[in-house]
Amino acid sequence: MAINSSRPTILVTNDDGIEAHGLHALATAMLELGDVVVVAPREGHSGMSQALTVRVPVRYREEKGDTPYRQYSVSGTPTDCVKLALHTIVPCRPALVVAGINHGSNASINVLYSGTMGATLEGCVAGLPSIGFSLVNREPGADLTPYLPYCVDIARAVLERGLPDGVALNVNLPRRAVQGVKICRQAPARWHSEYDARQDPWGGDYYWLTGIFESLDGEAEDTDDWALRHSYISIVPTRVDMTDYPMMKAMEDWKWRKH
Amino acid sequence: MAINSSRPTILVTNDDGIEAHGLHALATAMLELGDVVVVAPREGHSGMSQALTVRVPVRYREEKGDTPYRQYSVSGTPTDCVKLALHTIVPCRPALVVAGINHGSNASINVLYSGTMGATLEGCVAGLPSIGFSLVNREPGADLTPYLPYCVDIARAVLERGLPDGVALNVNLPRRAVQGVKICRQAPARWHSEYDARQDPWGGDYYWLTGIFESLDGEAEDTDDWALRHSYISIVPTRVDMTDYPMMKAMEDWKWRKH
Repeated sequence: MAINSSRPTILVTNDDGIEAHGLHALATAMLELGDVVVVAPREGHSGMSQALTVRVPVRYREEKGDTPYRQYSVSGTPTDCVKLALHTIVPCRPALVVAGINHGSNASINVLYSGTMGATLEGCVAGLPSIGFSLVNREPGADLTPYLPYCVDIARAVLERGLPDGVALNVNLPRRAVQGVKICRQAPARWHSEYDARQDPWGGDYYWLTGIFESLDGEAEDTDDWALRHSYISIVPTRVDMTDYPMMKAMEDWKWRKH
Repeated sequence: MAINSSRPTILVTNDDGIEAHGLHALATAMLELGDVVVVAPREGHSGMSQALTVRVPVRYREEKGDTPYRQYSVSGTPTDCVKLALHTIVPCRPALVVAGINHGSNASINVLYSGTMGATLEGCVAGLPSIGFSLVNREPGADLTPYLPYCVDIARAVLERGLPDGVALNVNLPRRAVQGVKICRQAPARWHSEYDARQDPWGGDYYWLTGIFESLDGEAEDTDDWALRHSYISIVPTRVDMTDYPMMKAMEDWKWRKH
């Protein structure tokens, strides 16, 4: 697979799967900045977090399509896609990893469950500038056109400036017309009433994951949740180091048994 | 299901599945501190991160066993177990969530992929003090006896002192005799050479996830990786807010298009 080396290579992936509209909208937009390779899950993997395929091997194949970039599908998770792309599929080291555009919000605590952000954080762990893009709208056919210039601007800025080691960007796009871009923190929140309990025809109980999102800091204007509710694009710089440093210090005086 | 209300209720889960030795060793040890309810995946779910079951419903059933606590298996991920336990299975709000003892390290960047820590962070998101325990030894029959007094001490300290909102503990147990307990930061690291490529009998390529762990800060004595290599138990206070605050500030001068 030959890639024109005068342009940066951009790896594009997602969690909604190789056929998703958002994936190809993003891949096509990225052609403005570089050569694009798409490596995405064969099937949708929403809510997959940074899960790995451990107990079975993974496979990939090139998909034929009338696209101005090559595309490969992987029989695994979004994180598997990034790992296998970097190990085997993409012949050079990409300059940028982008994931999305996800059909649904990955703002606030949803970052923890997001396959889109799983893939993004995987690019970050591999030492590559990485950005996840998600739209606060689950409709698979939502019009993405108005958002694409912003996605290109954000990706261009990251290509030009880089990102610190261990930091990726979680970008969420508001449902309504964009009022601007805001750098935000991850809103503290909780889901409640999380299951819809039903009975099968034989009287067995089963439970569908659902739930109501509740922001725990709804008035603060520096959160991604606030920005999106006010029609801003939210960008949260998101770190792979999950250490709570203040608590490390606070725990110094906890006493432990001697060995 | 009646629970003696004079003792705290402790929810015990894992990612290795309801039959794992480490799960029942931890559950039995926790009886010293409170009433125990086990809610664990029906099957093993290593590397599941904080993944959710979204596209199919989940079910649970009580498992019969000669144990001094009730145990339930769930047809989903470790995170599903915590969600369904809190929503439906456990009749009161637990005082503590513990996950493990995982058979394998969840130190350093492995926290990102860990189903054990996915369940732990889920307890934390739900506002409960939560601790994940993992042993740097993948042998399913490893002798856990020497570690259990430490697990009880750590759980007791958390029951007594609580944890700040949004902070859980990632506890890893060293392979050799314990020299003590250290409060640590998550070691920066990378996996490389991550796939073992093979061919099936029909000439098709497939890829097993494997890899070599490389610490990126091997000499620093404040990381979990260092502590474990020197036979200390590592405790990393781990936060669900993944925002990189310094980068938020640094991005203030990035310029964006006006709407």
